Amino acid sequence: MSNSYRTEHASDSMRGRSRVTDTPDLHAYYRELEAVSATAFWKRANEIEPWEPITRYSPTLWRYDDLRPLVLRSAELVRPEEAGRRVVVLINDSDAGRQHTAAVGWLFSGLQIMKPGEITPAHRHTASAHRFIMEGGGAYTVVDGHEITLEGNDYVLTPNGCWHDHGVFADGQISIWQDGLDIPLMNALETNFYAVYPEERQTPLHARDDSPLSYGAGGMLPAYGPAWDKPYSPLQVYRWATTRDALYNLAKVSDGCPFDGHIMRYSNPVTGGWALKTLGAHMQMLKPGLHTRAHRHTGNVVYNVAEGEGYSIIGGQRIDWKKHDIFCVPAWTWHEHVNTHKGEQAFLFSFNDFPVMEALGLYMTEAYDSNSGYQSNNGSGS
Amino acid sequence: MSNSYRTEHASDSMRGRSRVTDTPDLHAYYRELEAVSATAFWKRANEIEPWEPITRYSPTLWRYDDLRPLVLRSAELVRPEEAGRRVVVLINDSDAGRQHTAAVGWLFSGLQIMKPGEITPAHRHTASAHRFIMEGGGAYTVVDGHEITLEGNDYVLTPNGCWHDHGVFADGQISIWQDGLDIPLMNALETNFYAVYPEERQTPLHARDDSPLSYGAGGMLPAYGPAWDKPYSPLQVYRWATTRDALYNLAKVSDGCPFDGHIMRYSNPVTGGWALKTLGAHMQMLKPGLHTRAHRHTGNVVYNVAEGEGYSIIGGQRIDWKKHDIFCVPAWTWHEHVNTHKGEQAFLFSFNDFPVMEALGLYMTEAYDSNSGYQSNNGSGS
Amino acid sequence: MSNSYRTEHASDSMRGRSRVTDTPDLHAYYRELEAVSATAFWKRANEIEPWEPITRYSPTLWRYDDLRPLVLRSAELVRPEEAGRRVVVLINDSDAGRQHTAAVGWLFSGLQIMKPGEITPAHRHTASAHRFIMEGGGAYTVVDGHEITLEGNDYVLTPNGCWHDHGVFADGQISIWQDGLDIPLMNALETNFYAVYPEERQTPLHARDDSPLSYGAGGMLPAYGPAWDKPYSPLQVYRWATTRDALYNLAKVSDGCPFDGHIMRYSNPVTGGWALKTLGAHMQMLKPGLHTRAHRHTGNVVYNVAEGEGYSIIGGQRIDWKKHDIFCVPAWTWHEHVNTHKGEQAFLFSFNDFPVMEALGLYMTEAYDSNSGYQSNNGSGS
Amino acid sequence: MSNSYRTEHASDSMRGRSRVTDTPDLHAYYRELEAVSATAFWKRANEIEPWEPITRYSPTLWRYDDLRPLVLRSAELVRPEEAGRRVVVLINDSDAGRQHTAAVGWLFSGLQIMKPGEITPAHRHTASAHRFIMEGGGAYTVVDGHEITLEGNDYVLTPNGCWHDHGVFADGQISIWQDGLDIPLMNALETNFYAVYPEERQTPLHARDDSPLSYGAGGMLPAYGPAWDKPYSPLQVYRWATTRDALYNLAKVSDGCPFDGHIMRYSNPVTGGWALKTLGAHMQMLKPGLHTRAHRHTGNVVYNVAEGEGYSIIGGQRIDWKKHDIFCVPAWTWHEHVNTHKGEQAFLFSFNDFPVMEALGLYMTEAYDSNSGYQSNNGSGS
Repeated sequence: MSNSYRTEHASDSMRGRSRVTDTPDLHAYYRELEAVSATAFWKRANEIEPWEPITRYSPTLWRYDDLRPLVLRSAELVRPEEAGRRVVVLINDSDAGRQHTAAVGWLFSGLQIMKPGEITPAHRHTASAHRFIMEGGGAYTVVDGHEITLEGNDYVLTPNGCWHDHGVFADGQISIWQDGLDIPLMNALETNFYAVYPEERQTPLHARDDSPLSYGAGGMLPAYGPAWDKPYSPLQVYRWATTRDALYNLAKVSDGCPFDGHIMRYSNPVTGGWALKTLGAHMQMLKPGLHTRAHRHTGNVVYNVAEGEGYSIIGGQRIDWKKHDIFCVPAWTWHEHVNTHKGEQAFLFSFNDFPVMEALGLYMTEAYDSNSGYQSNNGSGS
Repeated sequence: MSNSYRTEHASDSMRGRSRVTDTPDLHAYYRELEAVSATAFWKRANEIEPWEPITRYSPTLWRYDDLRPLVLRSAELVRPEEAGRRVVVLINDSDAGRQHTAAVGWLFSGLQIMKPGEITPAHRHTASAHRFIMEGGGAYTVVDGHEITLEGNDYVLTPNGCWHDHGVFADGQISIWQDGLDIPLMNALETNFYAVYPEERQTPLHARDDSPLSYGAGGMLPAYGPAWDKPYSPLQVYRWATTRDALYNLAKVSDGCPFDGHIMRYSNPVTGGWALKTLGAHMQMLKPGLHTRAHRHTGNVVYNVAEGEGYSIIGGQRIDWKKHDIFCVPAWTWHEHVNTHKGEQAFLFSFNDFPVMEALGLYMTEAYDSNSGYQSNNGSGS
Repeated sequence: MSNSYRTEHASDSMRGRSRVTDTPDLHAYYRELEAVSATAFWKRANEIEPWEPITRYSPTLWRYDDLRPLVLRSAELVRPEEAGRRVVVLINDSDAGRQHTAAVGWLFSGLQIMKPGEITPAHRHTASAHRFIMEGGGAYTVVDGHEITLEGNDYVLTPNGCWHDHGVFADGQISIWQDGLDIPLMNALETNFYAVYPEERQTPLHARDDSPLSYGAGGMLPAYGPAWDKPYSPLQVYRWATTRDALYNLAKVSDGCPFDGHIMRYSNPVTGGWALKTLGAHMQMLKPGLHTRAHRHTGNVVYNVAEGEGYSIIGGQRIDWKKHDIFCVPAWTWHEHVNTHKGEQAFLFSFNDFPVMEALGLYMTEAYDSNSGYQSNNGSGS
Repeated sequence: MSNSYRTEHASDSMRGRSRVTDTPDLHAYYRELEAVSATAFWKRANEIEPWEPITRYSPTLWRYDDLRPLVLRSAELVRPEEAGRRVVVLINDSDAGRQHTAAVGWLFSGLQIMKPGEITPAHRHTASAHRFIMEGGGAYTVVDGHEITLEGNDYVLTPNGCWHDHGVFADGQISIWQDGLDIPLMNALETNFYAVYPEERQTPLHARDDSPLSYGAGGMLPAYGPAWDKPYSPLQVYRWATTRDALYNLAKVSDGCPFDGHIMRYSNPVTGGWALKTLGAHMQMLKPGLHTRAHRHTGNVVYNVAEGEGYSIIGGQRIDWKKHDIFCVPAWTWHEHVNTHKGEQAFLFSFNDFPVMEALGLYMTEAYDSNSGYQSNNGSGS
């Protein structure tokens, strides 16, 4: 859906908007309404029906240089069995961010750390979760009895309502990953349930890595056993090697997207849809020197720099980034990306709430059409 | 989906919950996190991951005896061309209600009034709207060029993104209807667009009432012309006579639902799904003297008493109602209904956000299983 | 899908067609191929890849004046418990019709008769069945425990795999209905299973007529109990009064279809799709004096004149019809309909294999565009 | 769906079957029926409603040692521009096979040969086609403007209605592939259209191999450009290396299917469904020495031995096979497979009409439960 809501000469003084002038009679009337749990629509109409969305969130950058030492420190300060999960939570630089414990929109994100031999106790919740592995080795997660090993730049799912516990094998390394959840949305919708598993950890019910070894091959699906009927992907981890090769292959045959370079969606192989019902994710590759055109869309995005360096211009504000920096694009905010390296690709992992937008018929997008598609001269460099 | 999230002996002091004791070191650490737009998960974990949903809304009753004179007065105080729409808005008795201009949850509701010969200017918005006609005659709405006449207890749609204008023919009567919209949700999701139509009113493009005359017959669909591919029902008004007869027929062959008596869903005849993508509606019939059992569910409901008298017990609180009273049931709140009349059916119209719950996989329900299914002795009478 | 397969100057002597000249060497080669269960493609290519479909079936008329006495006689000659079902089968006037026991295409049709107090033993089969009630009163069918009463011009389902037995109550009348099944298709696909119920008749498990009383109202669906998940309509009988009124209403607001007048599809109210997975049905109304334009389509149709008189031109051949006459239109054959009465509507019931065409992506249609859309002057009369 | 159609003590002399005894009166009656294009149901009922499907096809083996020299010879005898396509067609050892030019069921199969520098003229048809590459190098196909290179054991699509032309580059090798089409089904359904492209060959519109390079990676889909909305897979070739590795990976974590060993389905990555609407395909791996249990199902299968040697028991008949031998399993016929090699995997490619069975709700399967699941002692060897 593109944005087709533009009204010519839009103004709150035009017909079709609330233009009532307050009078003493009206003030008295308003008090009467208030007494019976009511109000007058025209008092609030223009505020609650804006011409277009106005985000409550700010573009925010979280530098990994800042976060990493603090994440490591958390491993000294609290134990996982006390903390539930040892996570440093990213808070958007806005009142809404602080109020809703949100990175942007109704999205939660944090950096979780585990040391060799540690585990987090098994639990589940209505909130959906996914992870992007930033550092370490020998980490694993067990999701509804499926044990999955985790490596750098892998993308891994913990779907809504699945039991899960995580750990690092005793011979592994300190591991750090980015969590993404829709906890704020679940609370906003008043649908957030939580439960603790009867045991500290699940006993795996399947061979290790059975999910990626069964569902990870392009276009091939197992043709026996019960049909997969769960509302999330049976492929529970997307390996970095596969993802990166997919982008390199795509770049051989396509010019990419004007707004995002070469970008691919982590998809459910048995439906082609999003891997989770309420959270989506992409990996995109920006060729050396690429400066994309600006656009905006409904829905919110959190980025994690998988490889490379560059900057993005978000709502007119330049945000410089390098490996494992995290930043966000709020809803309906113009944004464009730049790979400043002349010789290397940049890779941006990102996650979003687009599945919610699409499920409710609310995804809209618009290209920036002034200034050849760039927000400003100083932004677009030279 | 039923509620299967119950943890045995749930307590915030158990493993799997945050149980960190604050120390001066931790306090210093928290300040460092705050300086880089971060916080510690374990500080907020138990709050943002409750064991089950805790609604921010209150059961609220709006008596039509209170509202009606105020609604009539609005027709004297402001003109529709000034007000946009002349609507008395129902505000939930809670901070959340006042903050979000909400009747309950992310649902907006109000009573709109139009006098003979009046019109409201044509416009559209991302918010979906539907109406329940409470009083009057000779009212109409035009939705994307389809003109629809409106009668008492009809249920009528104004889908997301459709141009619409309303009016009462010059020989009609003062008309009052209840509007339901998801304006609060659209603002919460930052997806609310609004536009004013170039003309004050649309020119109908089809024969009057072409929608109900084409799509209103049970099981029969027109078999020519372009296939209906819009994300909402082609049947844009559901007539009271049809709805009432459907319930009488259903009652001949079914005992009904233990929690809701005989209840039917307004459905899209070309998909069987909800008529709108984000708003749902039901009509239910309570037999004389019926006292339903209590249950609760995610999602929010606003009721309008179409016929009859009785009471509901909502979150332990008794709310007495009669014709055209409006009340609400907040998310995950126990509720049961009673028809106190010994000889007449009671009919409750209601609308809800269940399509959102279902689209996101979040609809859950639970039966009240103590006390034979009733919340209390004094509530269940005798 | 419209027909876009037309090749300019199509000829079997053009490039892309088989144009091999036989030689003695080739003949010897063909014998060698035959010895190893093979043949040469180019020998058969043009025959098995025709430019467009060539039906094996003929337009056929079955006059009710001819059939009715013979159907009545069958009730004297054999008893239902001997015959299984006492049905006079309609055989297409073509070799294919006789070979496959088909009315047209892979469709079976017959006239079934039952006398008061008679029953047919309960059984089921992979073939789907539906019925159009032509005469009588007090007939019923029991389908998977749902008992349904039958009246004139009702359309009633016996879905694939459902147990069914029929009967006429002792105080009823001799009843005749048209059966439509896809027995020939099930045999062609080698998927035809058959089973006899352990008892002679089923015990109804639900209140009589629970299906039409629960699902028969336009746009209203029961909102409790288990969700309907079967691959056929929960509405198992479509009453004539509803169907006729639906067409009258439609005619108030629409000009109808150029090829079919006002035509409606019997649809599954919980999906909007066909009522059965492999058989479809329509009722259409031709206004007095209407002469529709000609078109053709893949898929086969059997018509039963519900009311009125007129004629159809099918593949250039005029077929005159009156009440309860039956005729067929073979696949990809031009056809147009005429209501010759100047004052009365004509109603044509019809059933088809369009659901198969659509499920396999094979439904194609084409308008006759010469001669103002009529096949010939003598056909279009005057 | 499993087979639940078994009637206890099934016999044509039981109630619910036709048991009419012929009489002179009946004979006279039958002649009267015939005169009005009718017949009596009970004369044919037991024949057209069998207890279970009875296939018209025979298990047939086509030895590649027999076929290959004949296929090579065809390249000397006719030129592609004369023959349309130079294909040796496989004919089932049954009357139905010869009548319908079918390998089994409504499936067509043949071996196509092309020499370096040759092309087949561009055309299209309603029949769907797919290919399994048996020999050669430097072959390609162009499908609706997408050029795809072909290598040994690749599986490649030519969907219904797509323009296609094939060729071998001048520096390539003689290439032989197996074609599979549903020409017999399209003729049986009278839906077969054919057209010749205006030019001898298409000009590729996309970079070479853009389809596998864009859609071939497990779980990753391009996230820009128009959404894929065609009724077939955007992934038009499934490479052997990917397929084989997928099976090896699957075998690491699963015991496989009792009837088929490790078996995977070629799937459409944007839907998870079959790659084509009417034809399906699998690759299966039989571990050294594996002897699978017998089962049967509706639908027909043609096998091509991709690697290895062994035998299958089909309808009680043993068929020995080695690399590139082709054999078939007719509908509802018991079958089991044996890899006779003690050290090497065997790989069987196969294609089928299961998508038709599933789309029409007709897929049924049954395990052979006598004799520990094997058809006979002599069959199961030793």
